Amino acid sequence: MITFHNGRHAGHAGRLEMFRGELVPCFEVPARAEGVLHELRLRGLGPIEAPPAIDGALLATVHQPRYLEFLEGAWDEWVALAPGNDQRDALPSCWPVRHHRSDVVPANFAARMGLFSFDAGTPLTAGTWAAAREGAACALAAAHRVRDGARAAFALTRPPGHHAGADFFGGYCFLNNAALAAQALRDGGAGRVAVLDVDYHHGNGTQAIFYDRADVFYASLHGDPRTEYPFYLGHADETGAGDGLGHNLNLPLPRGTGYAAWSAALADALGAVQRAGAEALVVSLGVDTFDGDPISGFRLAAADYLRVGEALARAGLPTVFVFEGGYAVARVGELTANVLEGFEQAG
Amino acid sequence: MITFHNGRHAGHAGRLEMFRGELVPCFEVPARAEGVLHELRLRGLGPIEAPPAIDGALLATVHQPRYLEFLEGAWDEWVALAPGNDQRDALPSCWPVRHHRSDVVPANFAARMGLFSFDAGTPLTAGTWAAAREGAACALAAAHRVRDGARAAFALTRPPGHHAGADFFGGYCFLNNAALAAQALRDGGAGRVAVLDVDYHHGNGTQAIFYDRADVFYASLHGDPRTEYPFYLGHADETGAGDGLGHNLNLPLPRGTGYAAWSAALADALGAVQRAGAEALVVSLGVDTFDGDPISGFRLAAADYLRVGEALARAGLPTVFVFEGGYAVARVGELTANVLEGFEQAG
Repeated sequence: MITFHNGRHAGHAGRLEMFRGELVPCFEVPARAEGVLHELRLRGLGPIEAPPAIDGALLATVHQPRYLEFLEGAWDEWVALAPGNDQRDALPSCWPVRHHRSDVVPANFAARMGLFSFDAGTPLTAGTWAAAREGAACALAAAHRVRDGARAAFALTRPPGHHAGADFFGGYCFLNNAALAAQALRDGGAGRVAVLDVDYHHGNGTQAIFYDRADVFYASLHGDPRTEYPFYLGHADETGAGDGLGHNLNLPLPRGTGYAAWSAALADALGAVQRAGAEALVVSLGVDTFDGDPISGFRLAAADYLRVGEALARAGLPTVFVFEGGYAVARVGELTANVLEGFEQAG
Repeated sequence: MITFHNGRHAGHAGRLEMFRGELVPCFEVPARAEGVLHELRLRGLGPIEAPPAIDGALLATVHQPRYLEFLEGAWDEWVALAPGNDQRDALPSCWPVRHHRSDVVPANFAARMGLFSFDAGTPLTAGTWAAAREGAACALAAAHRVRDGARAAFALTRPPGHHAGADFFGGYCFLNNAALAAQALRDGGAGRVAVLDVDYHHGNGTQAIFYDRADVFYASLHGDPRTEYPFYLGHADETGAGDGLGHNLNLPLPRGTGYAAWSAALADALGAVQRAGAEALVVSLGVDTFDGDPISGFRLAAADYLRVGEALARAGLPTVFVFEGGYAVARVGELTANVLEGFEQAG
């Protein structure tokens, strides 16, 4: 399987995030992707390439222009605001919750940071835009390769993407790589596409992007949002709206879930993907389901990830893998490569 | 004029707030109210009393039960979460912006902190609930005194209130003292009540609470939300909804506005209050319009506040004053007392 690797990911290296009421060192670090890259090379899982340059207009197939415009210029704005800002990351501090307006774009930078985000755990850094944009290029390259006949391709990138909505960042995510890949597969001719999100955390951004559409089916197994981030989406009763009704499947699972229950939910999700008539599959591949993950609560063991790859392969669909979460930095490479190797060997 | 003083306000003493991407010492400090108390005593502006105890059910005339239940138990929950939490304040870190759900109350504490707030600048401390509740008692006592025939009464309390909505805290506010006073005046027989908000910041919480009601008219002059906190409400085109259409007046003013333009807007607002047929007035009395305020942008001078009090008196309405913002700590007492003294002398 070919891997498209984001050579600019390390430029996005946040210092501090808000977590449980205090600023702590970021969990989402460059070493995550480096570990995966190292392991893919070790195992010789296939070619590793830089993605071709993309037309920026492709980002607007998923994201709002006002949001893209903000992200592109945000770091320079932040640095220009005050001396010393180049030495610290930008974080938002207020948000337009219910009863507040999101239709007016304020002039104030802090206000726009909050308008276009939903948490205080996602620092915007000097290299964020370049890294996110190159990551989108990886996702699009993988989708185009699959569109052109490859059985599978992998977008190895960070920052991750599945928490990013059409016009908001958060959960360490800025551009929704999985959504961009799904849209590219649709635009490339697939009548219906499924996004299967196996990250520990619900992909609130992806769900929101496709919630009222019938042509992209979103299925996710994840920590129950009653107790797990991102909290405000991911319940079982969210089944889509309008044209999208019936095209969204959430399978929340309690903290402590092990592979037996998790893989049963995976089988349910894959069954739903088949019934949805998907002609192509995008996998939001988070490996924070691992029992050693520092901020998650499932109990998958390293060897289980080989079985995950095999199960995904049995769906028999052209598949784009997009790297998402996974914070047990020393093990993320092994876990991710296990999924891809399991998939390849079952081919 | 009688003042009801919150003897528990100093128990709410936040350590750090998120401001422009970093944690900084709180601007909203106990010395603010102490300065006002000192000045009122110096000038002998009237009796200063503790409020009578209130029936907690009165808080639900403005706030949602799920929110009150959360606030009451929040500190104990926070402390029980992790060792050392009693040594630091609770701050939220993620929020249910658009596309997210606010109807489900999560079990997770951090999730509920975010569900019930809109910023990361409002620490919840050991004494927050007791202080906020006693502050509400001050506002209600002042309203009851005015209902019973007093020309005016002052609720001297912090945390302030006008940014707090029916079910969210933020902007240093937890319980909306002005809204509680307005509701108490309505319940006490006033056919229509006006809330006039002269704080530098728009009272997004108060507006949201009464936005669809015709019986409480909300008028505010404040820093333009395109550049000033709270950013996501306070525009001139917000005129009310449903039954409340036409009963909300926002007069946003640019940074740098001095007393001439500000007092012209005040006259406009007072004219609207008269036309609305208000039988009683609640003044959200922030003095962060002062040109020395560290986080605001108007240019009022200390002597101007005497004129503000006189202008308010000329409305000829029974008036409840509720203390809101004002962060030039050494001057807040003087500015506030000037308003009250101007009001008294014009009586």
